[in-house]
Formats: sequence, structure tokens, C-alpha cells
Amino acid sequence: MSKLKGNLDEKVVAERMQQLGFDTNDPEKAGLLKATMEKLDKILTANSTSEAILQDLHPKIRGRVEKLRDLQEEYDTLEDAFMEEQRKLVLKYEGLYQPLYDARAEIVSGKQDAQIEAVYTEDEEEAGAAEAGEPAGQGVPEFWAFCLRNNDVVSELITEKDDEVLKYLKDIRYELLGFDEAKEAKDGEGEEQDEDEEEGFKLYFEFEEGNPYFDNKVLVKTYKMIDEEEGILEKSEGSTILWKPGKNVTVKVMRKKNKKGGRSKGPAMTKTEKCESFFNFFSPPDPQELIGMDDGDSEDFDEEEMEELQAALQEDYEIGCIFKDKIIPHAVSWFTGEALEDEEEDMEDEDEEDEEGEGDEEGISVRAQSNSQANTSEASLQGEQPECKQQ
Amino acid sequence: MSKLKGNLDEKVVAERMQQLGFDTNDPEKAGLLKATMEKLDKILTANSTSEAILQDLHPKIRGRVEKLRDLQEEYDTLEDAFMEEQRKLVLKYEGLYQPLYDARAEIVSGKQDAQIEAVYTEDEEEAGAAEAGEPAGQGVPEFWAFCLRNNDVVSELITEKDDEVLKYLKDIRYELLGFDEAKEAKDGEGEEQDEDEEEGFKLYFEFEEGNPYFDNKVLVKTYKMIDEEEGILEKSEGSTILWKPGKNVTVKVMRKKNKKGGRSKGPAMTKTEKCESFFNFFSPPDPQELIGMDDGDSEDFDEEEMEELQAALQEDYEIGCIFKDKIIPHAVSWFTGEALEDEEEDMEDEDEEDEEGEGDEEGISVRAQSNSQANTSEASLQGEQPECKQQ
Repeated sequence: MSKLKGNLDEKVVAERMQQLGFDTNDPEKAGLLKATMEKLDKILTANSTSEAILQDLHPKIRGRVEKLRDLQEEYDTLEDAFMEEQRKLVLKYEGLYQPLYDARAEIVSGKQDAQIEAVYTEDEEEAGAAEAGEPAGQGVPEFWAFCLRNNDVVSELITEKDDEVLKYLKDIRYELLGFDEAKEAKDGEGEEQDEDEEEGFKLYFEFEEGNPYFDNKVLVKTYKMIDEEEGILEKSEGSTILWKPGKNVTVKVMRKKNKKGGRSKGPAMTKTEKCESFFNFFSPPDPQELIGMDDGDSEDFDEEEMEELQAALQEDYEIGCIFKDKIIPHAVSWFTGEALEDEEEDMEDEDEEDEEGEGDEEGISVRAQSNSQANTSEASLQGEQPECKQQ
Repeated sequence: MSKLKGNLDEKVVAERMQQLGFDTNDPEKAGLLKATMEKLDKILTANSTSEAILQDLHPKIRGRVEKLRDLQEEYDTLEDAFMEEQRKLVLKYEGLYQPLYDARAEIVSGKQDAQIEAVYTEDEEEAGAAEAGEPAGQGVPEFWAFCLRNNDVVSELITEKDDEVLKYLKDIRYELLGFDEAKEAKDGEGEEQDEDEEEGFKLYFEFEEGNPYFDNKVLVKTYKMIDEEEGILEKSEGSTILWKPGKNVTVKVMRKKNKKGGRSKGPAMTKTEKCESFFNFFSPPDPQELIGMDDGDSEDFDEEEMEELQAALQEDYEIGCIFKDKIIPHAVSWFTGEALEDEEEDMEDEDEEDEEGEGDEEGISVRAQSNSQANTSEASLQGEQPECKQQ
């Protein structure tokens, strides 16, 4: 067994086991022995390699490597301090952003209508004319629905039916996981940092209470990461939406044809079928399914199926990031469309430079692969014809 | 032309142009007109949309949106301050890391041999025994070659011939672009930040002078990013390696068979062919080639070719990141193999948890897609059988 590294000789062990009355010709027992030996080998290998390498070195060189290890410890201490300072910096600014998000929610919902009117409506005549016409309503109606509609990637998900539901969307917030105050306090006590702490983020979609579509007041989407920096997603989860009867926009209800033809005697038979909807965002694919495929026998999984699931997961995560990094922090620019224009202008600038023969500012996304299955990947492929965006 | 948004009517313009004596039936002139109109349309659209949306709003709502825009400005100011603080934090720690990297280079090259011997070789007897045996040589011989060999992804690139060349590798460093002191000083003067500043990083591979393979003392690999956070790569470039005659390990020299058979009269004909080598890392694929494909007529490019190029670019970039984020900061752990063991142990832990039915710590890379063309993508697919690593 040439793969074993930890100095285990399979032949010798098998002979010894046979002497002990262990029937190594029994396939089940032989399999058990093989598995045990591989496990043992792994343990031996893991615990011996680096120390063995050191022991094999000339004593003088070993001394130099020990000195290098001391330096590495100094580096690791600095790196930990950097991570902690960075965490505090993020926390500090998240704290500064919150009052602005709170104020925005109040303006959008209409809680600041009176104060704003006193300050902003300086043009008395215009205000008077407006007063005579249609009433303005409270706050900024359909603020978030417009924001979502103006983002290329998110708008792809929104159907006409969704539009009606999204009118009741009042606010969107994010929460960064692994950044809470409790952790802050714990670290202050000098305890060791919990390695299994959660990373990732949550998105909160707040809807008007008593909306005619579902009973949830808030829909939550959670992304748990094993390693946020490396982009390793552990779990993507959404709230179960408590649709009111007949209001579920993620399914089509179809009347079953009466087999015998003619008029049905009993109540009409119906069946439901999944359909496209923004609200499928709350029923994301399960990363563990893909891991299951990969863990199983290599003959078990269908490569195409795996790639599709991977692309779906990638798209799901990228949409989450669009909410966290783009839409929530700059919502009003998405409402007016300025954010979209900025993105398009960036690309047009590149295009024009190209025409002048000085094009040097285009790039290729090296995070997501260009793939027809993942819209978001295509969106991040810079340098495409701006005309595509207008179709 | 239904695609035009800026209220330009192609028909009306064409009629007017004809009246002015412009022959719109001439294909060349018609093309020119079309291009001009599309450009004009873009300008009109970009400057009108968001303002038009605001003007269409009820005056009271417009006031509320203006208030939201004021809040957004406050947010943007805070965000700029956050970016600047973060930049300074990175700069501060890069400064703290440098002396450690300098000391490491001195130890590896042997410049600190005498000092280390005085401190670290406490076991006099062992030292004496070693003295009697083989000499230790200077520093830590082949330090970096071992580091590279112990990284799964990089070792895939290294051939037997490369091994011989890598013995002369003395040091590897990185430099972060867009973080230099000059910029620091400029910002201090309150000038506006240059939007076109470079992002990305450079890797410096320092070789022993007078090595028998090439004349370069340092090989440089540069990654220029348009948007580092979003992972948009603009350019990947490597040094031109000045191979000494007959020493180029990236090509195979093949003797051409004499067509007539028998012994050749003149000198033997040879031809060279590219072959696998770590040093191909310095001749990376060109992202602009992919952009060229995408810019051209859709019939021009071969989708498979595009995907291959995208995968190659992705792998090239990920290898760069492995040097910057893993190998350079933790070199001695790669030398001893501890870093590799840590990575493997993480995966084994997950595997064992799985067997106990508590597996909840696996994840899927949502940065790179799993694709058989990109080794690095596969490497980042967590939860694979640890046995694969030993093959």
C-alpha cells in the first residue's frame, strides 16, 4: 500500500492479524482492516511529519529553523492584533451607520413627514398647487420596490405578481454575524476567542403588518460562512413564508382536467407547481446537498447536476452580497437610479477609451466564473457591450 | 429604434439628414449615423433619468427624497473615512511585518548563522557530533523550494526540472499596490484621491545571482486589479525570463528526424515545444484576450475556449493569492509542512464529525466555481475526501 506514509506495512499487519485468527479473506473484515489502517496511518502521518523533518535536519540548520519559528510566532501575534483592530474598526463604523439607517426608515415610512415639510417645502406656490391636486400619501411609497427594480441582478428575479407584494416592503437591514457586543465583552476578559464562532450575515426584510399576502412581519435570510475571507459558505437559509390562502406567488395553481370530460361532479381538482418569484430567495439551495454529492461514491453524482447546484448557490450568495454591500448602504441612489447609472457609466467609459485605442481599464472577474447558468457571474464580467444592459 | 431611451426618434433624424444631403442609403454613412445616435442617446439617458424621476414625484415626496439624499451624503462621508482608516491600518501592519520578513531572509540566506549558533545550539555534545559529520552549509538550504513543494496547489506546477532551478530561490516578497507612502503624503495635502490609482499586488521571486539557469536576479509577477474587493482583474504580467542557452525548463527541445533517413549531412535540426513548468507562472494568460472575445461578434468566439481562458485566469490569480496570503506570511510552517497539516486536519475534523452524524461545519466555495479545468477551484471545494490529498 504505497499511499500509506506513516511507516505502516500492510502486508506485515495482515500476516499478524491472520496469526491472531482474523480472517483477512472475508471481504467485510478485510475492508474493516483497511479502513482502520488508513485511519491509523493518517494519525501517525499528521503527528510525525513536521517533527520528523526537523529531526532529520543538521543540528545547526535545525537551530536556524527554530529561530524562524520564533519569528513566525511574532508574526502570528501581530496578525491576531491586526484582525482584532480591523474587527473593532468595522464595529465602530457599523455603529455610526445605524442612526442613518434608522432615520431613513422613519422618512420612508412617513414618521418624519411633518418635520420635513417644514424644512424642505420652500417653494410655497408649488406646495400649494400640489396640495390642491392629489394627496402625497405617507413617506416615500414603494421606496424599496423601486430600489430592487433598479438593480440589474435583483430585478431579474421580480415577477409582476412579486411587484404587488413588494409594495408592502418597509425596510431592509443587514446584521454582520460574529460582530456582536457580547463577543466584544468576552474578548475584553482575555478569554480565548471561540474558533467556531459564526461568520456571515443576516438580511431582514420588514413588511407592513397586516399585508394581504403573508403573516410574517419580517422575512430573514441567513448566510453562515465557515471562512468569510475565503468565501466558503456553510449554510444559506430563509424564513418560511406564511402565505395567506391563495396568495402564494411562488406557486401556480392549475386546475386539473376532468378525465372523463364534461362537467365535474365534485369540487374542481387543482394542483400547484413552483414558479419563478423573488420570494424563492427565501428557499435557497442547500450547500450540504452538494457536499453530499461530493462525499458519496464518484459514480453516484451527476457532474452537470453538481455544476448547476454550485451555480445556483453562487448566485444566491451574490444576491445576498448585493443587498448587503450595494442596495442597503446606498438605497436612495438605487431608488433614483443613480447607482445603476454609475455602474453603466463606468462601463461606457471603458468602452469609449477602447474606441480611442487607449482602453486599458477593462478587467475579468476572477472571483466568479463566467457561466451561462449564473446571471450574477455574467454581470461581473466587465467589458461587455453596454447595449446589453438596455435590452 | 425601440432601444433608444433618450427620446431620439431615428426615423425623424434620418429624414432630416436626407434633406441635408446625407446619403443614409450608403451603408458606411448609415453605420456612422447609427453609432452617433446611440452615443447621443446614451448621454441624454444618463443625464435625464434620475432627475426626471425626481421631477415626476409629488413635491412633498420629492422633499422626503431630498432628505434621504442628505442622509446618503452623510453615509458616504463616513464610508470614505472608514476606507481611509482601513487603508492606514493595513499600512501600519505591513510596516510591522517588514522587519520580520527581513530577518527571515537573513536567516534563510545564512547571514545570521554565527549569531544563531551562539544562542540556539545548546546541546554541545550533539553540536560536536554534527561538526564531525557533514558540514551544515549556509542558512537553510532550499528553504523556499520546500515551502512550494508542501503547498498542494503550487506543487502541482513543479516539475523535476523546476526543482533544480528552485534550489536557487532565495526569497519571495509581496508588495501591495495603491498603498505606497507617496500616496499617503498626497492624501495628506487634501488633494482629491486619484480614482484611477492602481490596485492589486506584485510578487518578487529573488534568485541567487549567477545561478546557472537565467540572468534575472528577480522575477516579478504583477496583478493589477480594477476593483480588488469585487475581484476584477485587469492585468496579469510576469517578467521575461532571460534563460541561459539550453537552460530553459519551459520548453522541450526535440531533434527533427532527417527526412531521407540515414545520417544527416548538416547540423542536426531541432525544434522547441512548450512544456509544463512552474516558470510558466511568469507567462500568464492575458485577460484582455477574453475581453476581446466578448467584445467581438457573438459568432466570433468559441464558448469552450472562453471558459478555458477564464479558468486559466482564475487559477493564475488564485496561485498569486496563495503566495501573498498563505506562503509568504507563514513560510516556515510551509517548510516544515505544519501549514499543510493544519489544512488537512481541518478537513479531517469535518469528516469525523460527519461520521458521528454531527457534521455541520462543511461549506461550499461561493467565490470560485467547481470546475475540472481549474485545480484551485477544486481545492477550495471543502469537504472532499482527504485521501485525495495524499495521492
